[in-house]
Amino acid sequence: MNKTLIALAILSTAAHADEGMWMPQQLPQVAKQLKAAGLKLDPSKLTQLTEFPMGAIVSLGGCSASFVSPQGLVATNHHCVYNSVAHNSTPQNDLLANGFLAKSFADEVPAVPGTRIFVTKEVVDVTSKIITPEVAKLSGKKRSDAIEKNQKAMVAECEKDEGHRCTVAAYYGSLEYYKIKQLEIRDVRLVHAPPAGVGKFGGDTDNWMWPRHTGDYGFYRAYVSKDGKAADFSKDNVPYVPKHVLKLAKEGVKEGDFIMVAGYPGRTNRHRLPSEVDFTFGWNYPQFVKASGDNLAIIAAETKDNKDSALKYAGQVAGINNYYKNRQGMLDSYAGSDFLARKTKEHEELKAWVNSDAKRKAEYAAGIAQVEELITKRDANVKREFELSYSQPRLLSSARSLYRLAQESQKPNADRKAGFQERDLKRFEASVSALVRSYDEKVDKALVLHHLAKYAAMPKAERNANWDAAIGIVDGMDAAALKAAIDKLYAGSKLGDAAERKAWLGKKPADFQASNDSFIKAAVAMYDVAMKEEAEEEELAGSLQQAYSSYMKAKIAYMKTKGQAVYPDANSTLRVTFGKIAGRPWGTADGTAWTAFTTVKGVAAKATGEGEFNAPKAQLDAIKNKDFGKFVDPALKSVPVNYLATLDITGGNSGSAALNAKGEFIGLAFDGTLDSIISDWDFNNANTRDIQVDLRYMLWNMKHVDKADNLLKEMGAE
Amino acid sequence: MNKTLIALAILSTAAHADEGMWMPQQLPQVAKQLKAAGLKLDPSKLTQLTEFPMGAIVSLGGCSASFVSPQGLVATNHHCVYNSVAHNSTPQNDLLANGFLAKSFADEVPAVPGTRIFVTKEVVDVTSKIITPEVAKLSGKKRSDAIEKNQKAMVAECEKDEGHRCTVAAYYGSLEYYKIKQLEIRDVRLVHAPPAGVGKFGGDTDNWMWPRHTGDYGFYRAYVSKDGKAADFSKDNVPYVPKHVLKLAKEGVKEGDFIMVAGYPGRTNRHRLPSEVDFTFGWNYPQFVKASGDNLAIIAAETKDNKDSALKYAGQVAGINNYYKNRQGMLDSYAGSDFLARKTKEHEELKAWVNSDAKRKAEYAAGIAQVEELITKRDANVKREFELSYSQPRLLSSARSLYRLAQESQKPNADRKAGFQERDLKRFEASVSALVRSYDEKVDKALVLHHLAKYAAMPKAERNANWDAAIGIVDGMDAAALKAAIDKLYAGSKLGDAAERKAWLGKKPADFQASNDSFIKAAVAMYDVAMKEEAEEEELAGSLQQAYSSYMKAKIAYMKTKGQAVYPDANSTLRVTFGKIAGRPWGTADGTAWTAFTTVKGVAAKATGEGEFNAPKAQLDAIKNKDFGKFVDPALKSVPVNYLATLDITGGNSGSAALNAKGEFIGLAFDGTLDSIISDWDFNNANTRDIQVDLRYMLWNMKHVDKADNLLKEMGAE
Repeated sequence: MNKTLIALAILSTAAHADEGMWMPQQLPQVAKQLKAAGLKLDPSKLTQLTEFPMGAIVSLGGCSASFVSPQGLVATNHHCVYNSVAHNSTPQNDLLANGFLAKSFADEVPAVPGTRIFVTKEVVDVTSKIITPEVAKLSGKKRSDAIEKNQKAMVAECEKDEGHRCTVAAYYGSLEYYKIKQLEIRDVRLVHAPPAGVGKFGGDTDNWMWPRHTGDYGFYRAYVSKDGKAADFSKDNVPYVPKHVLKLAKEGVKEGDFIMVAGYPGRTNRHRLPSEVDFTFGWNYPQFVKASGDNLAIIAAETKDNKDSALKYAGQVAGINNYYKNRQGMLDSYAGSDFLARKTKEHEELKAWVNSDAKRKAEYAAGIAQVEELITKRDANVKREFELSYSQPRLLSSARSLYRLAQESQKPNADRKAGFQERDLKRFEASVSALVRSYDEKVDKALVLHHLAKYAAMPKAERNANWDAAIGIVDGMDAAALKAAIDKLYAGSKLGDAAERKAWLGKKPADFQASNDSFIKAAVAMYDVAMKEEAEEEELAGSLQQAYSSYMKAKIAYMKTKGQAVYPDANSTLRVTFGKIAGRPWGTADGTAWTAFTTVKGVAAKATGEGEFNAPKAQLDAIKNKDFGKFVDPALKSVPVNYLATLDITGGNSGSAALNAKGEFIGLAFDGTLDSIISDWDFNNANTRDIQVDLRYMLWNMKHVDKADNLLKEMGAE
Repeated sequence: MNKTLIALAILSTAAHADEGMWMPQQLPQVAKQLKAAGLKLDPSKLTQLTEFPMGAIVSLGGCSASFVSPQGLVATNHHCVYNSVAHNSTPQNDLLANGFLAKSFADEVPAVPGTRIFVTKEVVDVTSKIITPEVAKLSGKKRSDAIEKNQKAMVAECEKDEGHRCTVAAYYGSLEYYKIKQLEIRDVRLVHAPPAGVGKFGGDTDNWMWPRHTGDYGFYRAYVSKDGKAADFSKDNVPYVPKHVLKLAKEGVKEGDFIMVAGYPGRTNRHRLPSEVDFTFGWNYPQFVKASGDNLAIIAAETKDNKDSALKYAGQVAGINNYYKNRQGMLDSYAGSDFLARKTKEHEELKAWVNSDAKRKAEYAAGIAQVEELITKRDANVKREFELSYSQPRLLSSARSLYRLAQESQKPNADRKAGFQERDLKRFEASVSALVRSYDEKVDKALVLHHLAKYAAMPKAERNANWDAAIGIVDGMDAAALKAAIDKLYAGSKLGDAAERKAWLGKKPADFQASNDSFIKAAVAMYDVAMKEEAEEEELAGSLQQAYSSYMKAKIAYMKTKGQAVYPDANSTLRVTFGKIAGRPWGTADGTAWTAFTTVKGVAAKATGEGEFNAPKAQLDAIKNKDFGKFVDPALKSVPVNYLATLDITGGNSGSAALNAKGEFIGLAFDGTLDSIISDWDFNNANTRDIQVDLRYMLWNMKHVDKADNLLKEMGAE
């Protein structure tokens, strides 16, 4: 009977997934669809970024999150707090394995350096201020420089409000620009993460998979100075009091329910040209997958007898694995699809539409032709630089950044390259000191040597003379000679020492030029040519911006003639996606389907007591004893763990709050399914499902397994 | 869109499976349900066993089958013709691996000796003629003997019609008896079997599993003498012309469709007592699973370097594996269930109902008490004899049967023990000569030694003195001594020679008594005590029959007060089950469901090119090229392979024709799913699904892979 209800729900919702990563201000355009899907809030309310519920949604920079208590408690994914857990782990106290729970505010520990919580305060369309009539006349590097200048000026003005970070983000392939102002909270502390046996249950085996049983949640807390301003870590800081906080849903969700996810999706490519599709799936992703596989094997081999080093690389391994499987999944989907043919056809239709009208032709045709040409050029650059991009010692990369900073610091702040302005210094410093936590020379060298050997084997004409000179690569070098050169390079540098690295932060170019440190010397030697190359890239970027925005303008106009609204590709800015909780009528294997929910029954079935499926004994006991408390789902007769929905999310959405029709908190989005992730390029309405961790599973674990009663009380769950 | 239709169908049908193995004559009692389920034929038509469609349904003795052409072509499962394929295989021409197709009648080959096709002609209730008023007064062995005497007399009278085989079968735990008269076709030939890579695709790994992709079909042809009588094999014989033939459905089936399966289910245990449940699941099945696992390992080890011997045991291995997995599956389901508690409660309720009324108490109470007591006794016997049942050399078993035959043949035919009458001789002879095809002394000896070692280790008091003496078992025998005794036994017999074995068929008891053949000597030595044991068993059986029928009578009366009709447990007689084609809203793993159909897409996904998943290259090519012809399903966009239905089937139903609402042929039932086979004891309405091979897959393979155009034409598929 209950199981029949599940089937009913599959039916009513499985028709298709819901494409669209809407900018909040676009939501009134889809108000009808939102209402039809079941939203009980006024859609226009969702456009108010500083009101409920959007006011509670924050970014961690790369992950999404949300305030869930009036004392600045932030809920996000386990894999978003992973590096902070690793950072606080030692071989003696492996917090990744054991989990972490601060029983009081005093027990909370600093997150990994560089961790930020960004609270969006304002989003404004500034297109006409970035692409002024003057800029519109420019092209190439001049256009690129002018746009950057306008952006930087606007950012500088905006950031006069201390403790805030401002961005001018490009939308629709740089057709539009929005200024985003965010409070940048710098004192972030780790509050709670379940053991990896819960938070990363299933590991890389289950990553991107359904059925899924991962308790992918964790908690940070935002701290500010006593006067409520963003501040560096200090014992005197106090928890940040957010203006809005998500309320926990009192009722559990079920299949067919409305669901909405608000977060910061990183990047999609739905408006790309056929040539970009061809290059990505024909060359770039296959190369990436190969390199990632190599790197994973190297890191595993180099860290296998060194727990400290393994811990240092745990976050990177997770990251590489994640994209490795993601890209391979996309390639698998692509192999069996007509995507390129369809994309080509669509593009030809667009061009035919443009060319069928003299006015349109005059307005768009040249831009479209140019974008096609420029992309070919850009692809050639990517190919040439591919192995090099994996061949740079981490400390050389640091040295080059430090020298660049010294060079840029010679200029007035406003003229400095983005990333090297005064506003960037804190994050710059944090990343310089954080390196020690994720770096091991032995591992780094093995990775570099592997890729450098491939690079060195390329014909001289295809190599980069600047790099060859800096690293000491010559024609016909054998493995031993290459290793000797690299050993010499590493041996000649003291940058592995954090204090040493930090000491370079305030120095002048002349100090660098006088240094005998091997990496610093290489950085100095490479500088001039690198600047020339950068200028060439900017020339290309400027032209591309101009051509691409012309192409996008044509596409938007064309889609309008078909009655279709266009949302911009994801660009790490705040978006809303809505749909339904729904299984899928076909599963991974022929003859199977996916139900919308998994339960703790499946955790027990998968648990092996070790490795990726090492569910904690306390949890297994609670499952066995049906110690479910109030978190049992009446239809499933068990505690729901994860659930599928028809939402449109991508990387960066990790940790996004999932909200019900009333805007209440019902869980956290954390993943997509492998056979639907090609949706980043080619959204498939029927196939696409994303995965959430159910709020009830989070609360059940916290109550019945980890005894996090302090947090439950704080969130109002008790 | 199409996939949505699938989900729709899951919903509309997934509510529950349809319990009931109805005797055809009971069908008018469930006419309302049949109509509601979608049957378009008049239910009363299904009671006419010699009319369409029931007239086309036949038994193979252990399997079910049906006529599908006017020239006696019989469709059944691949695993039902498996031994005939193995029988005709040689190391040089492995028909199991390659498949077999007779392109003309002349190319057809004899099935394995003993193969029969039984065409039911008549079914009559004869309860009052078996349990006459005189018999009703008897008990114990006297009752048992009297029942057997009445049965045999009735069978003898019935079989005066030459070429027929008659049975008097017991229903409702011997409460009722029916006489069944069948034409016994003895000239059965193998017509077609696909390669094992189709017919046994998935092997033991997929057996009892979903998703499933097994082409479990094969064809025999029935031959009779020129005057239309059942006859031994002869080149002059002609194809049998059945009175009725199943028509192939022109339209493919889809989820939600009515489905009906007519066949000969072997045995169910739905009316058993709690003590029988407890004994079976607490002791008997666990022991069986252990012994089966041991035997599989021994056969594998002994045949691994001998293809000839491996072929001989292929059929037995398949059989053992099948029940091994089946019983283990039941044990798994039992472990997590409240079955025994429920059964106990039901039984207590029945007893309370009986005891609450003086008349009922007088009629039933003693019988119920007695049946409980007798079952305890029977269980003790089974326990004692368990290891011995695995310890008998096949040739000793043959010798004992031959000697018994000689003994029985001294009596007038009517007085002989059932199985040793004149009517049994042909099958007896066939089984004696067939043995050579499935016997290898080395393997047999290894199996016997394994179990005999366990038997010999039992205390003398628990052993069977008769066996000990015959085999030469003494207290404290070590492995070497046991092996020596067994070696001597095997070495002293010529029964391994088929001609020698056959020569014993006509001999007198004195010939046996004078023989020096070790197995014949042992058979003679064991005879008297065995007869005494048999008499004790008959005493028990007579008492059980009496008590059990009293219990069943009480149960039927009790169920009637609840408005519930009772169908008899399966007993290898013709039954009809009906329901719907339906997936299941929960699958094998948490978070998954089962769709109703698999497709050839899944065959390609599972194919490994070897072992159990060795799909033929021609088939994989056809799948790759989407060479689907008219057999493609419009919704699935592929050729359907297997489908699930809510039917109530069990072993013996293998090869049963699946019929649509119009009585047209739509495929063959061949399996259940592991987590629903406990339904043999405890039918679970929600969980139970059986598996059919789709007619379209059969025809597609025959057309596009095996080029069996002759058969397609014959069946009217062209």
